[in-house]
Amino acid sequence: MSIKIKLTHILAEAVQELHPGIKLGYGQTIENGFYYDFHLPNSISLTDLPKIEKIMRKKSNSVFKLTKIAGAYWKGDEKNPMLTRIYGIAFQTKNELDEYLKRQKEAEKRDHRKIGKELDLFIFSDLVGKGLPLLTPKGTIIRQELEKFIIEEETKRGYLRTCTPDLAKKDLYKKSGHWQHYKESMYPAINVDGEDYVLRPMACPHHFMIYNSKPRSYRELPLRYAEIVKQYRKEQSGELSGLMRVMCFSLVDAHIICRPDQIEKEFKDVLKLIQHSMKVLGIKDYWYRFSKWDPKNKEKYVDNPKAWRKTESLMKKILDKLKLKYVEAKDEAAFYGPKLDIQMRNVNGKEDTAFTVQIDFDMPEKFEMTYIDKNGEKQRPMVIHRSSIGCIERTMAFLLEHYAGALPLWLSPVQIWVIPISSRHKKYAKEVMKKLSENGSRVELRDENETVGKKIREGEIQKIPYFLVVGDKEMKTKSVSIRARGKKDIKEMKLTKFLEKVKKEIETKKNS
Amino acid sequence: MSIKIKLTHILAEAVQELHPGIKLGYGQTIENGFYYDFHLPNSISLTDLPKIEKIMRKKSNSVFKLTKIAGAYWKGDEKNPMLTRIYGIAFQTKNELDEYLKRQKEAEKRDHRKIGKELDLFIFSDLVGKGLPLLTPKGTIIRQELEKFIIEEETKRGYLRTCTPDLAKKDLYKKSGHWQHYKESMYPAINVDGEDYVLRPMACPHHFMIYNSKPRSYRELPLRYAEIVKQYRKEQSGELSGLMRVMCFSLVDAHIICRPDQIEKEFKDVLKLIQHSMKVLGIKDYWYRFSKWDPKNKEKYVDNPKAWRKTESLMKKILDKLKLKYVEAKDEAAFYGPKLDIQMRNVNGKEDTAFTVQIDFDMPEKFEMTYIDKNGEKQRPMVIHRSSIGCIERTMAFLLEHYAGALPLWLSPVQIWVIPISSRHKKYAKEVMKKLSENGSRVELRDENETVGKKIREGEIQKIPYFLVVGDKEMKTKSVSIRARGKKDIKEMKLTKFLEKVKKEIETKKNS
Repeated sequence: MSIKIKLTHILAEAVQELHPGIKLGYGQTIENGFYYDFHLPNSISLTDLPKIEKIMRKKSNSVFKLTKIAGAYWKGDEKNPMLTRIYGIAFQTKNELDEYLKRQKEAEKRDHRKIGKELDLFIFSDLVGKGLPLLTPKGTIIRQELEKFIIEEETKRGYLRTCTPDLAKKDLYKKSGHWQHYKESMYPAINVDGEDYVLRPMACPHHFMIYNSKPRSYRELPLRYAEIVKQYRKEQSGELSGLMRVMCFSLVDAHIICRPDQIEKEFKDVLKLIQHSMKVLGIKDYWYRFSKWDPKNKEKYVDNPKAWRKTESLMKKILDKLKLKYVEAKDEAAFYGPKLDIQMRNVNGKEDTAFTVQIDFDMPEKFEMTYIDKNGEKQRPMVIHRSSIGCIERTMAFLLEHYAGALPLWLSPVQIWVIPISSRHKKYAKEVMKKLSENGSRVELRDENETVGKKIREGEIQKIPYFLVVGDKEMKTKSVSIRARGKKDIKEMKLTKFLEKVKKEIETKKNS
Repeated sequence: MSIKIKLTHILAEAVQELHPGIKLGYGQTIENGFYYDFHLPNSISLTDLPKIEKIMRKKSNSVFKLTKIAGAYWKGDEKNPMLTRIYGIAFQTKNELDEYLKRQKEAEKRDHRKIGKELDLFIFSDLVGKGLPLLTPKGTIIRQELEKFIIEEETKRGYLRTCTPDLAKKDLYKKSGHWQHYKESMYPAINVDGEDYVLRPMACPHHFMIYNSKPRSYRELPLRYAEIVKQYRKEQSGELSGLMRVMCFSLVDAHIICRPDQIEKEFKDVLKLIQHSMKVLGIKDYWYRFSKWDPKNKEKYVDNPKAWRKTESLMKKILDKLKLKYVEAKDEAAFYGPKLDIQMRNVNGKEDTAFTVQIDFDMPEKFEMTYIDKNGEKQRPMVIHRSSIGCIERTMAFLLEHYAGALPLWLSPVQIWVIPISSRHKKYAKEVMKKLSENGSRVELRDENETVGKKIREGEIQKIPYFLVVGDKEMKTKSVSIRARGKKDIKEMKLTKFLEKVKKEIETKKNS
C-alpha cells in the first residue's frame, strides 16, 4: 500500500477520533498527496489541523503535512449537501517533502497574480467580471512591447497583417466544423435581427475568407496572414484565474496558405521564429510534443482517416528531417489536423502547452480554397495554423513568474528612476531625465522629500531596473551614479556613456 | 406650391395615364426631390422611367429627373402589401440640377466601398455577416499607420495607454446608467454560467474601474487613459454600410480624469490635439457644434437639471474663452453631459459628427470616484470623454473618399513601384528596391513581361504614389526616373537623393 493511500485512511481515523460518530464522505489520493471529505457538524479551521496531524503522526510514523480545508459537494454534485474536505501532501522521504514545500513557497512568491497587484500591472473588477483582466497603463506597456517585438519579427519574415472582426455568423463556424467539433468551448450565440452571431473561438475562417475573396495564383503563395486576435473560448468559471485563464485572450496568430511543395520550408521557418522568440524572451526550458488524433474519439475529430494518416506521416517526416526531438501524444490533435506543441513547465512545475504549429488538411477542402498552378489548373493549397508567442495574456503571466517580476529592461514598464540627493540637484536630475526620455527610455523622477535609501528600497519592490542617484559630484562631471536592480554596488558613469549602454540594452532586448 | 410638391402630383398623374385604373399609394417631397408609391399590377423597370418623364415634362414644363425605383410597404409597415416607389429629383433651376448630378457622379466615383474593392483594402463575407468588414493586408496597413500616428501623438501629450476587455457584466452598465439610457443601442446580453455579459457600447466604465482600483492623490491628476476600443452599438441592419456603419467599430478613445481647476486646460489641449490631427490628415472643412440636453427628453438624459445647467454653462465659458465659433444643437448631448461635436460634411454633402469632446458630471458621482486634495480631504474629480480621430473604420472611409483613394504617401499601402525597362535591368531594380525597403518604404518590384506604359496605367488605377523606371542610363548613373501619381512628367534623380525625399515626405506626413 502506498504511503498516500495509507495516509488517506489514517486521516479518516484521526478525524473520527476527534469527532466520534462523524459521518465519513469519500477519500482519494492525488498528485503529491491525498484528501478526505467529512460531514462535520461544526466547521473546522486551519488551526485544527495540527491536532489532527499529531494523531496521524502517532498512527503512521510518517512524513506528511495537512495543507488546506475546502468545501466539496458529496459526489461532486451541487444538489448534494456540502462536505468539508481536508487536503494533505505526502512524500516517501522528508527530503522530497521539504523540496516540495520550498518549491511551493517559491511558486507563491512568483505568482503573477500577486506580482501583478504589487507592481500595479492589472486589476480585476467584480462589476466587469471574473476572467476579464483590465491592464493598467504599466501592464499595457508590457503588452505593447511584446506586440511590437513580435510584429516586427513577423514582418521581417514576410507575414502580412490583417484586421478581422471578433465575431461572425454562426454559419461560418458551421461551415468550418467548429460548431460540430468545438461547440463546448464556444460562448452562446447573440441573436441580432434574426441572425445568430458568435464570439469567435478561432480566426482561421476569417483569414480563409480573405484568401477566397479573389482568384490566387501559384506565384502569390505562400500567403502568411498574421493578426493578434481576440478569441473567446469558454472556460469553467472556477478555472478562470489571473492572466492565465481568461474569458477572452489575444492570440498571436497566423495562417500560412501555401503550395504542397512549400510546406516543409514554411514549417521549418515557423520553428525558427518560435526558437528565436523563446531566446529573446529568455525561456530555455521547453520541449516539443507531436500531438496526434485518436481514431476512437469520433466527436472530437473530422472523420477522414486517410487524410489523418497522410498528414501525420507528412508531419513526422518534416520533424524527423529537422532532427527535432519530441514526445508523442495521442488524442491531443486539433480537430482538423495534427499539431506540434511547444511545451513548458510553469512555476508550479505543471506542464502546459505554450504554442502550437498545426498542419490542416480539412479547412482548405471545406472552404474550397484553390490556386491556379503553372499549367493553369486549379489546385488545393495547404494550411499551417501557428502561434509564435502564444496568447499575450498567458505569455505575460508566464514571464512575470519566470522573472519573479524583475523583467528585462526592454519589458519593464518603468525602466529608470532618477533620484536627486537634495533639492539643489533637482534641476540636473530633470536634465538627466529629459536626456533619457529622448533616448527612448521610460523614466521617472523621484524627488520626494525622503532619503535616497528609502527610495531605493521602494524601487526594489517595484522592480525598477536602474536607479540613478545624482548629487554635487555627478552634477559637476555630467555623470550619474548607477545602482542596478538587486545589486549592492554603485558605479559612476558619464551620462553620455550610460545613455549608450541603456539604448543598447533595450535594442538588443538583453535578458540576463 | 413648391416645384417638388407640384412634381409629386404630376408623377402620380403621369403613371395613371400610362396605367389607367392603377391604385395610388402615397407621395411625398424629400431632400432634393420627391417620391410616390403605386400599387402596380406588373413590375416596372428603369427603362420605363423616360416614358413617364416625357409625360411629366409636358404637364409641368419643368427641370427634374426620375432616378430610381424601390419597393416600399404601404404605410411603412411590413405586414402591409409591397408597393412600387418611384423617386425623382427636382430643383428650381437647370443649373442647380446639373450641379447636383455632377456632385452625385463625383460621390459615386469617390464611394469608399467602390475604392475599397478596387484597391483590395477590405472585403465582406456573407458567412461572416453584414457590417463586419475584414481588412486585407493592404487595408490593415492604412489602419496601422493611423493607429501609430495617433498613439505617438497622444503619448507625446501625456496620455497613458490601457488595455481593457470588450465585454463586461450587465451590472457594470446598470451602474453607469447605460442600461437605463442607452439600452436601445446595445446588443443582447450573453448568459454565461448564470451571469449576463454585454459587448460594450462604451469604455468609460472600464477606465473608471482602473481609476478606482487604488486611492488617488491630487498630485497624480490629470490621469489621461487612452485606448483604441472596439465598441458595439446596434445599428438597423439596413443601415450597415461599408466602413461607415459597422457592427463593431474601433474608437480612438480617452477619458481624462482631472481636478476642477484643470478642466479648462485639459479641454483646450484636447482641441489642440484634434486640430493638429485634422491638419495632418488633410481635413480642412469642419466646424464645431455645442450639443446640449433637452429637459423634455426624460428617457435620454440623467435627471439632474442643476448639474446640466452648471456643466453646460461651464462648457460655454470654456468655448467662449477659446473664441471658438460654434453652432448650438438641442437634444444632442450624451446622456451624462454636454458635448462639443466636430462636424464634417461627407462626400454626398451630408453633415456628420466625426468626433466629440464631452464633459461628464454624472459618472464620477455614480462610480464614487475621488481623490485626496492638498488638505487630505476627499474630492470628486471631473471627467472628459473624447475622441481624437474618431473611429478608425469611419476615418478610413472618410479619408478614402476625401482623397478619392489617392492617399498621402505615409498612408499608402504600397508606396512605390520599381519598374525595370528590360530583363537586364532587373538586378539594379532589385538593388533599388532593397535600398528603399531599408529606408522604410513599402515597395513592390514590377518585373513582369509587359510594357512600362501598361504597368504605369495599372499603377495609376492602384493609386501608387511613385513609379521608378530604371534602364541603362539609370543603372550607369545610380539614379532613378520618377513618375509621380497623376503627373505626366518624368524626372531623373540620384537614388540617394530620392531616398531622402521619400523619407522626408513620409516623416512629415505630407498631404498635398
